[in-house]
Amino acid sequence: MSSSPRRRILLSVTNYNPRRWHELLSARHDVVLDAEPGDPTIDYAVVWKHKPGILSRLPNLRAIFSIGAGVDHIFADTDLPDVPIARVVAQNLSQYMTEFVVWRVLDHQRQGMLYRAQQGKKVWHEPEQPPANEVAVGIMGLGQLGRAAARALLALGFKVNGWTRTPRPMEGVTCWDGAEGLPGFLNATDILVVLLPHTPATEGIIDYELLRRLRRDNGLGGAILVNAGRGKLQKEADILRALEDGTLKEASLDVFEREPLPAESPLWEHPRVFVTPHAAATSDPAHLVPLMLEQMARLERGEPMENLVDREAGY
Amino acid sequence: MSSSPRRRILLSVTNYNPRRWHELLSARHDVVLDAEPGDPTIDYAVVWKHKPGILSRLPNLRAIFSIGAGVDHIFADTDLPDVPIARVVAQNLSQYMTEFVVWRVLDHQRQGMLYRAQQGKKVWHEPEQPPANEVAVGIMGLGQLGRAAARALLALGFKVNGWTRTPRPMEGVTCWDGAEGLPGFLNATDILVVLLPHTPATEGIIDYELLRRLRRDNGLGGAILVNAGRGKLQKEADILRALEDGTLKEASLDVFEREPLPAESPLWEHPRVFVTPHAAATSDPAHLVPLMLEQMARLERGEPMENLVDREAGY
Repeated sequence: MSSSPRRRILLSVTNYNPRRWHELLSARHDVVLDAEPGDPTIDYAVVWKHKPGILSRLPNLRAIFSIGAGVDHIFADTDLPDVPIARVVAQNLSQYMTEFVVWRVLDHQRQGMLYRAQQGKKVWHEPEQPPANEVAVGIMGLGQLGRAAARALLALGFKVNGWTRTPRPMEGVTCWDGAEGLPGFLNATDILVVLLPHTPATEGIIDYELLRRLRRDNGLGGAILVNAGRGKLQKEADILRALEDGTLKEASLDVFEREPLPAESPLWEHPRVFVTPHAAATSDPAHLVPLMLEQMARLERGEPMENLVDREAGY
Repeated sequence: MSSSPRRRILLSVTNYNPRRWHELLSARHDVVLDAEPGDPTIDYAVVWKHKPGILSRLPNLRAIFSIGAGVDHIFADTDLPDVPIARVVAQNLSQYMTEFVVWRVLDHQRQGMLYRAQQGKKVWHEPEQPPANEVAVGIMGLGQLGRAAARALLALGFKVNGWTRTPRPMEGVTCWDGAEGLPGFLNATDILVVLLPHTPATEGIIDYELLRRLRRDNGLGGAILVNAGRGKLQKEADILRALEDGTLKEASLDVFEREPLPAESPLWEHPRVFVTPHAAATSDPAHLVPLMLEQMARLERGEPMENLVDREAGY
């Protein structure tokens, strides 16, 4: 890599402190945090919710890199230049996401919310406790993150269901696909884990009608939702309605329609909702920057880049 | 099993509702909840914290069965008859304990206590988050339960250390043993998981001196204790002192010096202690009663019983 020239990177980030990214990318290339329209010196863009329109005005831009696994924040800009867009696919990202999914599934299955409420009242009481092998976790989205989470849940003894847009069989997982497969998948699921990408087809998919189809008559005393995918997948008013009328027992939400979650959202104070600040799979720059630099080096050497985004599918 | 005669079982239980045990054992044998000294009709005793002295006064008693994995509650009675004592070793028990250990380890590693506190204040903030492979979980006690938990933690990517009384190597686990191995084990451990049996040698082993040796200068911001073994292993005054002076960051305690945990215990209200009511590995009678009945049938056929307790070792 030492033979490739020093390039100029636009690091365009909002809603996020880019200090570490700046530091690590600067060791190899020049980094700027903003650029004038028409700036011919910018070779690469590394972005998270960048300023719309800025990228198409960089005449010599060679590629766009997303901080984070999802790229919906890039397509929020409808004026994108025709250069390759690469996603981040770090081992580390699967690792973090698997930890998060297993953590939230166990906290709901082992009745963490009930035990914390009991502790507050000094109540010593052991409720009925179904073992993992009597609980079905249904994962929507069996990409790299979903498959890693499924493997970990299977190893712990859970029954695992999967739902994907197009058929994607996986050993040990009962799979459904497409719109016609959704009711069967939901009806066999006690804990729903959402790891879908955000596309026009998935926007708002987690609504009251979907939640209503989950299995409620189970050993957990109700259906449970874990969304670690994207906030735009969910209709928060529907989730609140489902929590109120018993359609949902509990929810763990890492992502929200608006982020940061506004102070006025009733989700913050709901006793059966656990809120995390879009932190399920943290994008650790110490792991991701070397992967990005290697992608740039591949491009410099005329080799194909990896993990390119399909603009058609939107992910 | 149908050929063996109907026997008479004393079900002697305190601090626990034996309704389901009574129901399930009654389907095969006669069950009584109490017996007079000298009663010649009792063949078997199924016990949890039984009345001391009662068992040695049953002249035709053939075997004692413990409800639950530990048998310290049996040896609390110093006047025991010379009959075999069998522990419960259910697949199910390992399953429940593994779920509990992984749940508590993930909740501490993924900073559940911090996130719950943040949610209460509507704070949207992502702290530094070390991945599992930068966190070392140390398990004291590598019997059947400890080994099952170790396997699950390894599969999730954690570093796993083990400490045992006598050498018990396990693949993938860095092992120490004996008194001389304890400091090295503790010094390499961020999250301590205690699964030891309660014997005269282990009583009070979790004291301030031991906690002081754990690794505090780690990515989690401190050392963490999970006790899912026995309450008599821990000195609760020392745990509270360690929490106050920063020796311990957080603790999950399923067992206590006195159970149920008295209302006046400061552990109930400590913001960095998670209390569960001795519920880590629930003894589900639907799984355990058939195993016990099979043990009785083995004895009736003159075959050796399984999972006998070593009176010398106390477990």
